[in-house]
Amino acid sequence: MTPSAPRLQDPQDPRAAGAAPAARRRPGGRTARIRAQVLDAVLTELAEHGYDGLTMDAVAARAGVHRATVYRRWGDVGGLLADVLDAAGEDDWQPPDTGSLEGDLAALNHEIQDALTAQPPIMAALIAASFRSEKADHAQRRLWEDRYARCETMVGRAAERGELPPRTDARRLLIAATAPLYHQLVLLRTPPDPHLPGQAARTAALAAAAGAFTGAPPAGDA
Amino acid sequence: MTPSAPRLQDPQDPRAAGAAPAARRRPGGRTARIRAQVLDAVLTELAEHGYDGLTMDAVAARAGVHRATVYRRWGDVGGLLADVLDAAGEDDWQPPDTGSLEGDLAALNHEIQDALTAQPPIMAALIAASFRSEKADHAQRRLWEDRYARCETMVGRAAERGELPPRTDARRLLIAATAPLYHQLVLLRTPPDPHLPGQAARTAALAAAAGAFTGAPPAGDA
Repeated sequence: MTPSAPRLQDPQDPRAAGAAPAARRRPGGRTARIRAQVLDAVLTELAEHGYDGLTMDAVAARAGVHRATVYRRWGDVGGLLADVLDAAGEDDWQPPDTGSLEGDLAALNHEIQDALTAQPPIMAALIAASFRSEKADHAQRRLWEDRYARCETMVGRAAERGELPPRTDARRLLIAATAPLYHQLVLLRTPPDPHLPGQAARTAALAAAAGAFTGAPPAGDA
Repeated sequence: MTPSAPRLQDPQDPRAAGAAPAARRRPGGRTARIRAQVLDAVLTELAEHGYDGLTMDAVAARAGVHRATVYRRWGDVGGLLADVLDAAGEDDWQPPDTGSLEGDLAALNHEIQDALTAQPPIMAALIAASFRSEKADHAQRRLWEDRYARCETMVGRAAERGELPPRTDARRLLIAATAPLYHQLVLLRTPPDPHLPGQAARTAALAAAAGAFTGAPPAGDA
């Protein structure tokens, strides 16, 4: 789940910069500026050439940063990808708040579907890269963990509104709600279905209301 | 979904041969024998060296087959992987039949979890390879399509038993039931949770009984 997946942007556009955490200009001086330039260059190179065409030298050249700086600070391509993913998590993204659990899950799933089908396919490329690079793998997992943790507030609000049985497990509910999007778009690679975000949300909300995510696993299940 | 994922086997063991379609000895003469030897070699090389270490020459050497034969018949590494996946689908696998929808889905999910966590990690390696090779990608999708199509009989039986509302969409139900396994094990890469196969089955069965997979998508969803 990366509703705020890193996005390519026009660096001249302050709104775009605000919306894209991977590359936003921090008021942090030269070090932060170099990081923003380099991470922007990684995204552009990844979008244009994919993982196999992503090289330290091409990133340095595109960013206009000394090769030695890029090697010293990021080490290798895996280090660059990991920092792109870590930067994507350094934002103030909050899950949707629509007033109902099903509405929140549907809005979240629409964000996920939009990110997974965006052009250029940055998020898809980062997920693919996580099969190639251990550093990218770990960073991708940190990012998902952070996003799922933030989304638990959606489940907490639903519980307060009385929409959920006591002791509903937020994480299991969130995985069930979002997994069909990833399965269809990342693994089965079917064309995006505009109904799927809402349907998967409805499925999880119905199952949650019926007690699917409460307490201990059902007897006999192991 | 590849409950009968290709498995490495002892070629001396006829039971193992019967269980592993990718490599079983067909009574088809020399051509079939060569295919079995080569596909066995692909699985072994993939398990030992991963996609990056998989080469036509190593496969030919391990299979004891002329390089020229391997190049002529399979073309490249993508062709080898695609044939492994196609061979995995050439079996008589049938979905579980336990007498209840939840039981069938749980048994199916246990097969999927077993395949995704098997050692050596053949199925995980084939999924990873599908991000690298277009031929493997297409073959992986054909295999999943075939498996999901076969599983629709589970949903048909449940409907006949009166466990499901009319017009329940079998494919949507099956995706919802199995997606959490793939999401957790292939993308989030969490350790296998022995409760997850049963929980995901229960979630989908509860949602199905509540009408989550019937008819048109809910109004206002798009």
